[in-house]
Amino acid sequence: MQYTISALVANKSGVLMRVSSLFSRRAYNIDSLSVCATEDPTLSRMTIVLNGDDYILEQMMKQMDKLIDVKKIIHVEAKNAIFRELLLIKVNAPAEKRAEIYQICQIFRAKVDDLYPTSMVIELTGESNKLDGFINMVKDYGILEMARTGVTAISRGDSCIKDMLDYNERI
Amino acid sequence: MQYTISALVANKSGVLMRVSSLFSRRAYNIDSLSVCATEDPTLSRMTIVLNGDDYILEQMMKQMDKLIDVKKIIHVEAKNAIFRELLLIKVNAPAEKRAEIYQICQIFRAKVDDLYPTSMVIELTGESNKLDGFINMVKDYGILEMARTGVTAISRGDSCIKDMLDYNERI
Repeated sequence: MQYTISALVANKSGVLMRVSSLFSRRAYNIDSLSVCATEDPTLSRMTIVLNGDDYILEQMMKQMDKLIDVKKIIHVEAKNAIFRELLLIKVNAPAEKRAEIYQICQIFRAKVDDLYPTSMVIELTGESNKLDGFINMVKDYGILEMARTGVTAISRGDSCIKDMLDYNERI
Repeated sequence: MQYTISALVANKSGVLMRVSSLFSRRAYNIDSLSVCATEDPTLSRMTIVLNGDDYILEQMMKQMDKLIDVKKIIHVEAKNAIFRELLLIKVNAPAEKRAEIYQICQIFRAKVDDLYPTSMVIELTGESNKLDGFINMVKDYGILEMARTGVTAISRGDSCIKDMLDYNERI
């Protein structure tokens, strides 16, 4: 099962290494990870998608929360959050196939970012399974390369990660 | 200056730790990092935005290329690539301010993903400076929280990261 962890961490060198070493020490593989600046320049936000079970999730949440650089950490649950991911994909698209591929793009509301006589760069945003569905539709034309950002997530409503209690206090 | 590095790495536990330790050992901070699966299940694609100078870029490219798990690595240059990032942002939006904020969304072609009596979750895709511009426009209303995916990039035309020579062979 996939779990999404969202964390506010100190925006400084070494934090990513400390977090990723927690996972590699236990040989847990991360499905996707993204880390970027936030509205507060001292903090970064890290979103990790982890494949495992409840035990692994709890272990990693506890371990991460123990790190001094991890300020807040939450398990983002599907029922009350928005998950989004971005895909850039370069597909083989000779002139005779272009119309077919373009129609798939329109159905998925994907955007064509670049066109070349033999290929196309397409941009698509959505939940991971929408992106998977699109990739599945275009893979027979030949995927030259693709880059996904990994999932990022935000809770619905007006709750906010900054206002939450620390994980180890909550449990 | 900001540099974007794109790498194909082995999709296994420990790779992220080894890459991030290269940066932390030198106390270089990463502006953003995203890592996710590719069309080949044995490989992940990592996009790193690094702040520094040409020397730091060259050092990190060489060091990363030495890692056995790093299969291909390129410096993605602005002039011949597409850069995209995704932003999810929750903004304070009481009813009397909603129209103003919604108009900003329309101008930036941002999408409102969730609406709550006092707040709004907005989704925006684009280059980093477009996202910065949007954040700048809505910050006075009060940003409750935000999550960015970090930059992902793909080259224009039909060149492809898999077909490139290894970095240490190219230089």
